[in-house]
Amino acid sequence: MNTATALASPNIALIKYWGNTDNLLRLPASPSISFNLAELHTRTTVTWESDLAADYILINGQEATGDSRDRVAHHLDHVRKIARHAGFARVESSNNFPAGTGIASSASAFAALSLAATAALKLQLTERELSILARLGSGSASRSIPGGFVAWYTGAHHQDSYAETFAPPEHWALVDLVAVVSREHKKTGSTPGHAIAVTSPLQAARVATAQERFDRCKQAILNRDFRALASVVEQDNHVMHSVMMTGTPALLYWEPETLHIMSLIRELRQDNGIDVCYTIDAGPNVHCICTAEAAGTVEAALDTLPGVLEIFRATPGGPAQLVAS
Amino acid sequence: MNTATALASPNIALIKYWGNTDNLLRLPASPSISFNLAELHTRTTVTWESDLAADYILINGQEATGDSRDRVAHHLDHVRKIARHAGFARVESSNNFPAGTGIASSASAFAALSLAATAALKLQLTERELSILARLGSGSASRSIPGGFVAWYTGAHHQDSYAETFAPPEHWALVDLVAVVSREHKKTGSTPGHAIAVTSPLQAARVATAQERFDRCKQAILNRDFRALASVVEQDNHVMHSVMMTGTPALLYWEPETLHIMSLIRELRQDNGIDVCYTIDAGPNVHCICTAEAAGTVEAALDTLPGVLEIFRATPGGPAQLVAS
Repeated sequence: MNTATALASPNIALIKYWGNTDNLLRLPASPSISFNLAELHTRTTVTWESDLAADYILINGQEATGDSRDRVAHHLDHVRKIARHAGFARVESSNNFPAGTGIASSASAFAALSLAATAALKLQLTERELSILARLGSGSASRSIPGGFVAWYTGAHHQDSYAETFAPPEHWALVDLVAVVSREHKKTGSTPGHAIAVTSPLQAARVATAQERFDRCKQAILNRDFRALASVVEQDNHVMHSVMMTGTPALLYWEPETLHIMSLIRELRQDNGIDVCYTIDAGPNVHCICTAEAAGTVEAALDTLPGVLEIFRATPGGPAQLVAS
Repeated sequence: MNTATALASPNIALIKYWGNTDNLLRLPASPSISFNLAELHTRTTVTWESDLAADYILINGQEATGDSRDRVAHHLDHVRKIARHAGFARVESSNNFPAGTGIASSASAFAALSLAATAALKLQLTERELSILARLGSGSASRSIPGGFVAWYTGAHHQDSYAETFAPPEHWALVDLVAVVSREHKKTGSTPGHAIAVTSPLQAARVATAQERFDRCKQAILNRDFRALASVVEQDNHVMHSVMMTGTPALLYWEPETLHIMSLIRELRQDNGIDVCYTIDAGPNVHCICTAEAAGTVEAALDTLPGVLEIFRATPGGPAQLVAS
């Protein structure tokens, strides 16, 4: 049977990805750092079937249509090209986390799809090759292939823009408490968002200074230096949102409750010495990154805010992997 | 009698001032554009008295002490130097607008002080000389000397950094509706804030691109083109807050209610075609800039937000001027 099932986790970026040098190849303008969220995953089964007239895609039990179908089918085209395979595939994909929680599913989805689709064809891709392939589907999916603390290099060409592990998941017991303040679908998705980045008068400066923040963040992780981590994670996050809000059109992803949480987190750290900082993706929900020791205190503090609808707790996870179907 | 009384208005910047090339001389890193708020003013009487052993300063009926006394006395030193005058002055200053409303009083205060202190000594300073003098007390005070729509040039030296009118107040019937959401004193004042600007990885890019926004804003005002004005005013404001939040320490002036208002204003403009945009100084309160025709609608919409404590309404005003004591 030409079938395989893969699990991949979404990841949270500590140094952000925003804007490409090549939108088609999703070559990022700057390097980024992340870790996978172990407790969350997309499970994807790909079966190449000779009697299909087109790719058939089920996402969370529903047949995908329109853009989301096309995006998956287009990604399968890359796999067909690598494999010199002309057939179509049945894809069944589901997430163990709800949509619209500020945890993008495209990273875990394209990582799991890349692994399952190639494994089902008995292709033996290296982790690096898988990361490159996943990147074509969703930039940040390149980071959901390796495990632990991951660096994604910009690369000058398609073949040298990939992500790899620089420390294993158990290197540092960090926790990501995702404070959900809105379940609405985000106003501007990441793909059009990345294309808008270049219109900001600040993007060139963001890109020019990104390597310094990348180095500082990597070193803070290697040293398990939370204060250094907090300072660079929040700065890099503010730099990304600066680019978002100064482009044309302006992208303002924060909501009033987002600011409440940001303020609470800074207060916990600066006034109470709690090891916690925040980072926010292209949406209003807040990822509160803290040490395992601080997680209880942080979660209790978040619980006091009436605007926090839900809190997800996740820890650094392993790589995308094949499982029994 | 060596006495004179001057009135000067605070101003609202449409293209922002943030960061200096010389903190002592308050030479700005970038050019800015503003208009005075006609309905608001500081009234300052300066009397040079031969029997005083030190400057005596009353602000809103209270004797000034500490830093705020020193800042005024230091400014009088500049006047003494210009006048080759060795005496001390009694200064009585009061604002017709409350403190802590997001309307900085330092601009109107140092503009009125500069005019009254020099006039009381019968010095005949030109408007340009007064703008330069006022700048030494508070950068934005340079813009409260001329009337109407005002441009403040960076200048390479002390003598060529001044503000001047490029359109009279009646050129365009704009309204500034100041939505007050907090009456707390701002966390980091403008003087230390300007000094922090240089630590942001984005300030150089802000400065490098400021002239383009300045030109676009000036042209939008000359053309009375509100859509063009709105786009550049909000972008320039986001660029300034980007620098604020990415410096060390990070300065986050927005509060949850600030974001509520920003969102409301964009909705009014983008979805309802109302001529309104926002700009925010170093604090959480929001200046809603609109046409006279739109002001009623905007004020009514702001009134529906429970977090708006008060709304001030102001229109483009004239220059700082002498009045009977």
